Amino acid sequence: MTVASGATPRARILSIGTEILFGEIVDTNAAFLAGEMARLGVTLTGTRQLGDDRAGIAVAFADALRDADLVVATGGLGPTHDDLTREGLANALGEKLTEDPVLRDRLVQRFGGAGRMPASNLRQALRIPSAQALDNPIGSAPGWWAEREGRVAVLMPGVPSEMRRMWSEQVVPRLVARYLLAPLQTRTVKTFGIGESAVVEKVGDLLERPGSGVEAGIYARDDGVHLRFSTRGNPAILTAPVDQTLSLLGTDVYGTDGDTLAGVALRVLAGTGCGTLATLESGTDGALLAILAGHPLEDGEARFVGGILAVSGEPRPALPNADAILTVDLGQPAGLGRSRVRVALQAGETGFAEREVRIHGSGPQRLRRAAFAALDQVRRPRA
Amino acid sequence: MTVASGATPRARILSIGTEILFGEIVDTNAAFLAGEMARLGVTLTGTRQLGDDRAGIAVAFADALRDADLVVATGGLGPTHDDLTREGLANALGEKLTEDPVLRDRLVQRFGGAGRMPASNLRQALRIPSAQALDNPIGSAPGWWAEREGRVAVLMPGVPSEMRRMWSEQVVPRLVARYLLAPLQTRTVKTFGIGESAVVEKVGDLLERPGSGVEAGIYARDDGVHLRFSTRGNPAILTAPVDQTLSLLGTDVYGTDGDTLAGVALRVLAGTGCGTLATLESGTDGALLAILAGHPLEDGEARFVGGILAVSGEPRPALPNADAILTVDLGQPAGLGRSRVRVALQAGETGFAEREVRIHGSGPQRLRRAAFAALDQVRRPRA
Repeated sequence: MTVASGATPRARILSIGTEILFGEIVDTNAAFLAGEMARLGVTLTGTRQLGDDRAGIAVAFADALRDADLVVATGGLGPTHDDLTREGLANALGEKLTEDPVLRDRLVQRFGGAGRMPASNLRQALRIPSAQALDNPIGSAPGWWAEREGRVAVLMPGVPSEMRRMWSEQVVPRLVARYLLAPLQTRTVKTFGIGESAVVEKVGDLLERPGSGVEAGIYARDDGVHLRFSTRGNPAILTAPVDQTLSLLGTDVYGTDGDTLAGVALRVLAGTGCGTLATLESGTDGALLAILAGHPLEDGEARFVGGILAVSGEPRPALPNADAILTVDLGQPAGLGRSRVRVALQAGETGFAEREVRIHGSGPQRLRRAAFAALDQVRRPRA
Repeated sequence: MTVASGATPRARILSIGTEILFGEIVDTNAAFLAGEMARLGVTLTGTRQLGDDRAGIAVAFADALRDADLVVATGGLGPTHDDLTREGLANALGEKLTEDPVLRDRLVQRFGGAGRMPASNLRQALRIPSAQALDNPIGSAPGWWAEREGRVAVLMPGVPSEMRRMWSEQVVPRLVARYLLAPLQTRTVKTFGIGESAVVEKVGDLLERPGSGVEAGIYARDDGVHLRFSTRGNPAILTAPVDQTLSLLGTDVYGTDGDTLAGVALRVLAGTGCGTLATLESGTDGALLAILAGHPLEDGEARFVGGILAVSGEPRPALPNADAILTVDLGQPAGLGRSRVRVALQAGETGFAEREVRIHGSGPQRLRRAAFAALDQVRRPRA
């Protein structure tokens, strides 16, 4: 392995698969890898999606390897005739593919015997001389770490679970050993119930001049408008802009960094003596219970004990037994209108009767925003 | 407007926003647009994601406009200092941005008066001479349709709901008028409960030689392995490969084209005399009820009347009243294992007692696969 080089590596991501260009698959792999690179201090200069075309893949690798130190590709490592990423990189590097007996043995073992392995899977045992294989413990496609003339190309499977595991177990350790990385330090301030333009009006100066060595950004998410301050230097310089933002935005801020609306709301409930929460929702396709079920158990927070999705017009099911019951009703499009949600909290003296809250957005986003609006009502200081 | 030109346009997509390169936003816009282009018969040759950098955006537009007839960009049209897509395209075309009084008036009207509009929003009234504005009825950022020397660049907002509406109401009609489009005809065969390699073993020849003028692809999805046959010619030539696939794959096929596991399962239930279905699930974060709630009401299908997410270890809530109750339990990671799901159906004589089903995949995908596995059990022919 080469000695660690000094500069922050510039990276490109290639997502390979005609299914992406047909729009039938959302490329979540690129987003995951982009987030990982930001965290590690790898400078991502761009990502590309391209089809299962050998010549096109070869050109994309050649282009990317000219611009970047590191090219990370996902997809096209399967056993079928249109999985051509191995061939594309081999062409770009002018190297020949040959069967690796070790990879072949592993594949045969995986299938429980040579006779039980489809012949097409043999293509997954191919390798070029510059590449070392990356083990795939949960799928048949091994990855590659290929290094030539100081440039690195990494190939990983397109199946997200296989890719993520290979990335964290096999690729990240090699990146850390290969490059001197300067991880990006970020601080995030999270608001709910205030629009992006209104946030800009209140903190605009800070966004344009967040301080020397600090970058600022503003992002409208389902769980509210987030402000992010980042640096590759000393993270202490982020404290000042974060503190200023907190004081400028007041109670519209629900948290910072890893805080979530679910966690903050469950903490507020625990603070008012409610140990358990159940939910009843309609019109939201279960967005509220999905958010709460996905929230990990934390000390000092009320425990989510179950949720009900009631379909409008059907008999309302019995409520589960809990200290607090949060109800959210997005109503019918024809009735309450698309931008209002009814929220109520049954929680002894700290609950509140049904109130209407405006939400922004439309489409599927609206369902999650309705759920977040309900959690936001729970966490807001009681009037 | 230019006269429609004969050839199928080649297109590129640019998704602009540093937040995409930080991996904090998944680029669903590119997937949506890619699907639309496939449907319309626009040949998408690739997509790129790039940051909010004026020079980088200009280079990307120049590159894309060299390769493609049509470049569709989303993002970077907001009011903030890092929204630089307008500037980037202006640079690429060597044109000057000036304030469009009509756009300015519309913005002022939107905010309910000049005094109430944040000054930064004025940037959204800028336009270059080659561009006509595209109205945005649900947001402040107008889009652009810019045409120069036979090449078209379209700019749309990054907010998915605004982009989708602008695309269908403003861009698609212009594309249809501008180009002679040859829509892609596709047929899809959908399976569940059989792995990709096993499907390839059974239908591999058909995938490699689906017939003259037909392309074939295979895709592993949460709702099973799909085979797709497509052509830009007469769709009748797709019937033969689809029929062959159906007979080769037998009962692992649950439907074709627009069929969904939810719809097929609800139709089977209705056929056995169950008019209503409720669900009880645990370990799935509500994946089953979310799928059923998102399924549109159809004649001839049982009606979904509500679902319960029970949290393991908590008291089990009362079951809702319905003709059929579908139960799915993904269990604890420590208990049943990560790849088995327990499914049961209470439905008079046509129900079945708890059975275990193997599912593939891990992570969040596993939750949806568990829900789909339950629906698959409901639709499978009774032994």
